[in-house]
Amino acid sequence: MGTPANDYEVMYGTEIFKTVTMLQIGAPGDDSLREVAAIMKDVTMEYFSPLEQRNEQILQYHNSRGDPRLIEQLCKFLTDDIYREPVDSNDLLINNGASAGVWDLLMRYLLPGDTVFVEDPAYKAILPSLQESEFNLAGIAMDEEGMRMDLLEEKISRTKMRTPSEKFPFAAIVYLVPIFHNPTTKNMSAGRKRKLVELAREYDLLVICDDVYNVLCYRCPESDDPETAKPPKRLFAFDDKKDPGYKGNVVSSGTFSKFLGPGLRLGWYELPPRMQKTHIDHYVFSSGAGKNPYTGALIGLALKKGLVQKHVRDTRRMYAERIKAAHDIISSTVGKLGVSCHLPSGGAFLWIELPKHISASDVLEASQNSVRFLPGQLASPSGSFKNCLRVCITFYELKDLLAGVIKLCGFIEQAIGSS
Amino acid sequence: MGTPANDYEVMYGTEIFKTVTMLQIGAPGDDSLREVAAIMKDVTMEYFSPLEQRNEQILQYHNSRGDPRLIEQLCKFLTDDIYREPVDSNDLLINNGASAGVWDLLMRYLLPGDTVFVEDPAYKAILPSLQESEFNLAGIAMDEEGMRMDLLEEKISRTKMRTPSEKFPFAAIVYLVPIFHNPTTKNMSAGRKRKLVELAREYDLLVICDDVYNVLCYRCPESDDPETAKPPKRLFAFDDKKDPGYKGNVVSSGTFSKFLGPGLRLGWYELPPRMQKTHIDHYVFSSGAGKNPYTGALIGLALKKGLVQKHVRDTRRMYAERIKAAHDIISSTVGKLGVSCHLPSGGAFLWIELPKHISASDVLEASQNSVRFLPGQLASPSGSFKNCLRVCITFYELKDLLAGVIKLCGFIEQAIGSS
Repeated sequence: MGTPANDYEVMYGTEIFKTVTMLQIGAPGDDSLREVAAIMKDVTMEYFSPLEQRNEQILQYHNSRGDPRLIEQLCKFLTDDIYREPVDSNDLLINNGASAGVWDLLMRYLLPGDTVFVEDPAYKAILPSLQESEFNLAGIAMDEEGMRMDLLEEKISRTKMRTPSEKFPFAAIVYLVPIFHNPTTKNMSAGRKRKLVELAREYDLLVICDDVYNVLCYRCPESDDPETAKPPKRLFAFDDKKDPGYKGNVVSSGTFSKFLGPGLRLGWYELPPRMQKTHIDHYVFSSGAGKNPYTGALIGLALKKGLVQKHVRDTRRMYAERIKAAHDIISSTVGKLGVSCHLPSGGAFLWIELPKHISASDVLEASQNSVRFLPGQLASPSGSFKNCLRVCITFYELKDLLAGVIKLCGFIEQAIGSS
Repeated sequence: MGTPANDYEVMYGTEIFKTVTMLQIGAPGDDSLREVAAIMKDVTMEYFSPLEQRNEQILQYHNSRGDPRLIEQLCKFLTDDIYREPVDSNDLLINNGASAGVWDLLMRYLLPGDTVFVEDPAYKAILPSLQESEFNLAGIAMDEEGMRMDLLEEKISRTKMRTPSEKFPFAAIVYLVPIFHNPTTKNMSAGRKRKLVELAREYDLLVICDDVYNVLCYRCPESDDPETAKPPKRLFAFDDKKDPGYKGNVVSSGTFSKFLGPGLRLGWYELPPRMQKTHIDHYVFSSGAGKNPYTGALIGLALKKGLVQKHVRDTRRMYAERIKAAHDIISSTVGKLGVSCHLPSGGAFLWIELPKHISASDVLEASQNSVRFLPGQLASPSGSFKNCLRVCITFYELKDLLAGVIKLCGFIEQAIGSS
């Protein structure tokens, strides 16, 4: 079947993750997926037994926007359990998850030569495809408040951008992960979000937020309880429909992958009204007639029964415990060697900054590849962040994760020691 | 939730199809979907009880090409039960069904200004999106042997085409439905298929075959038995890897929608080797890590258990009966009024040609919208075929279908009578 294209192909049918510590894997672990499997089994049974109310219709072509019952339940879930502020069900549209969803937007709204502005560092997996595309890729540095708006504005002023037309209403795209950023775990500040919306309106930018970690929130200023903590306000809500200058420049791209199962290939957009029709009328939605009606309807039922909500509460509590424990090990062992690692308030990662003169590849070398992680450089469009690395806390159960992190810290120590 | 974007939105939650005869619906009916629902229930149970062999992995990110067990079973199914000639499992790649699959290819391989050649008439649903795209749309007339190659060649000679590059190796795309054509039900002849492969190699064309009806075969020269009849050899097999001039210019796009359930959003490509890597390495496949691992694995198990094969046999027998009976009614009632309708050897449709001076809209008017069908003109990039209409035979059970066709024939008679 050829060369493996991703880590999961390496893992498929093997148990390599038991001998090699694969801290690069940004996915739920087997323990979590087993619970989701039980949910899927339950709702499938309930949906099809007895077959009443024409429930076999979930196998039919469906609404272009997605199953209306799923949309209703998702809206309630996001409003009541996650964002704890109103989500408008009219903005929601079901898709096949964030990767496909984001790429569809790029394909729909960009022309060759157009620019995509990303954070530096950025979500690693999208970079090669962007670099090989007909679009220009421009990395914008971040600080503690997220993507720097002064640098973005400066870059815009030096970028030749197309005049927007009715069919291509955006001059360029900003793609970013404003909440629990991948890989740095940083949150964009409210001030920056406001400024980005301003710039988007001024320069006709489409801002695509990969809001895939928002659900994985562990604490917030108002609460240390992972069950009730709420993530920072999403950028989509800053592009307020009631603003006098509102045009609709921000999209939020969400997914069930990070808190249920990636294999469901189910996600959603919050889309501004002016983008809704373009999408819904397009052949892929109208002829395809909705993305994943089958899994969508099942998840709709799981939401209605509160099964998803319970799983999210359990997951948050579990991940909060893991991230804190992993962070504490790093601080207490290599912290004193000039290694810094911030404890994030949510998300799937720890971002580890080694002393400037140590590179992540030194650590890989010391480990003889027995511990894997994401070297920061791979996530950087400018090839920076050589001294950084990203560790995912979601894949391994607590004791295996901690054993892996202890191993990793040993190799970090070794790399620093021999430098 | 706004204006409905497709027929299924109109139908959702209603039973409109019981009062209005919706012969335009190109989808399986409730009876068929109920059987598929039973299959999905069975395989879900089996897959998850007991949870052994890490079966929860179908909820994980997965192989970029799709679940290897599904690919293996699909290959066997196509080889043994459908094409009855070898399919190479290395060519297969799982996707989200034909609409998304075809559109992805257009997006990947075309640049603004490039040309898409389609049949006239063509698959209706893709036309508006092509017309609104940055591509040129060129309709090529058909005759009894399918798309006319002399006209295609002439059109090519008058079309300014881009020089192929490594990244964009095709100068233009030919999109067609060579088997059980939608809407005319015609089959492209072997000679035409050979000629099209020749032209594709000569002019660096990518030929995308929407092979979505191939499975629905009812008879062939060797067999009148819908269970064993085999469809005409698909165009993909004419682009023979053993040919000295082979480059790989043809893609076959298949789907489970027409013989299982569209709601699964599951389909496949047969892709030539030179296109495989481009796809698999792309972020949507590698980060998305496979299209629909969950439904894919379940259908893989259903294939392994022979449940899909049985359903296909039942479906073929049922559709063969319906199409023959519907055809006979048309022939015996309005046939004598100059209405012609060919009995196809497979597919989902009957294509009805009214006398030249009668238009499909006259019939719609006569019916006061109580019978719906696809007016030929909507499927024509040149706006021709006003006197033609397409009727789908898959959606209604036999007696309801025939009642609908009798009603339709009455309105055809009325339209002819008052002309």
